[in-house]
Amino acid sequence: MFITFEGIDGCGKSTQAKLLEERLRSTQHQPVVFVRDPGHTGISEAIRAILLDKANNALTARTELLLFSAARAQLVDAVIRPALEQGSIVIADRFTDSTIAYQAFGRGLPLQDIQFANTVATGGIAPDITFFLDIPLQQAKERCSEKNADRMELAGDGFFERVILGYQDLSVIEPNRVKRYDAVMPVDALHEEIWQEMQGRIIPQR
Amino acid sequence: MFITFEGIDGCGKSTQAKLLEERLRSTQHQPVVFVRDPGHTGISEAIRAILLDKANNALTARTELLLFSAARAQLVDAVIRPALEQGSIVIADRFTDSTIAYQAFGRGLPLQDIQFANTVATGGIAPDITFFLDIPLQQAKERCSEKNADRMELAGDGFFERVILGYQDLSVIEPNRVKRYDAVMPVDALHEEIWQEMQGRIIPQR
Repeated sequence: MFITFEGIDGCGKSTQAKLLEERLRSTQHQPVVFVRDPGHTGISEAIRAILLDKANNALTARTELLLFSAARAQLVDAVIRPALEQGSIVIADRFTDSTIAYQAFGRGLPLQDIQFANTVATGGIAPDITFFLDIPLQQAKERCSEKNADRMELAGDGFFERVILGYQDLSVIEPNRVKRYDAVMPVDALHEEIWQEMQGRIIPQR
Repeated sequence: MFITFEGIDGCGKSTQAKLLEERLRSTQHQPVVFVRDPGHTGISEAIRAILLDKANNALTARTELLLFSAARAQLVDAVIRPALEQGSIVIADRFTDSTIAYQAFGRGLPLQDIQFANTVATGGIAPDITFFLDIPLQQAKERCSEKNADRMELAGDGFFERVILGYQDLSVIEPNRVKRYDAVMPVDALHEEIWQEMQGRIIPQR
């Protein structure tokens, strides 16, 4: 089973992903693997460094898309696919939906380019369920670390409003996979709602 | 006009590309821009460093494909497209056909993945003419620098035989664009043949 968490920075997805990871570890027999996309492998971290290097502000939107995709391909081939094949539960903090929300809705790249890049990057691996934590932009900013808040200021409110709209669209287009939650609710209450949804899913006890 | 040179290392394409560049500079009014793919931009060089770092031997074939594509996207957006829009003649040492030959035929990645990656990387920019310099593997090795020859030994003969076959296929599938030449002939004679082919092409004198 492959579970992903999505939403803008400050929505609380890393906290919820960790809570779900702990709950699954204490209740399920199979191993639970947690990954962060982009990142996790040495090569992905090297790519991430190019993406975050301020000297690279000439980076075009399509280069950015392909670099995120390269980091994801490595994460899928080196970690996610082997873990799934061994029967593990994999939880990812961000995955292909981030690319749709940020690069297509946020940056305005053609959706077909995003779909092509996602297809190559994943080699057909797709989440079984995605928890989208929806939060108004202002509240997300208040929750963010100063560093992240600065970065968000730089990109502009319009950018993040489009990203949120992208996620909301995905939850309407794929309602069985992308589950939208009000991320303003208390951490524990939100975790219980997510756990309820998980109960309704078949988790094979291999 | 967008001209590309293709073939395995040691086929002489860099030499021929430079000879054509000089001839065009001395006979044409419009500017001539020469690029090497991957490379040329600072970001592409940073990506190239990841590709060549021996510590990254865990790099999977799909990660490699997407990294080459990211470097190409930057080269297209930052250099090739602007130059073509200004009416320059652009000559590239390697481009999308390298990805088909090396990643699809050489590494065995699905052709669809290559086509998706090439589509995203180029944003629709395609060569008007491609000079494929065909050479038997053994002769290419003899012409190579020691460093390149070592690298070729590492990949194995089978790999390069498949790459050559890939290029030959392209020259059969797209005969109007991909022109195949016997790269064993003397440098000057080959340059004259390439120049003949160029004469038959319309080069707008903007």
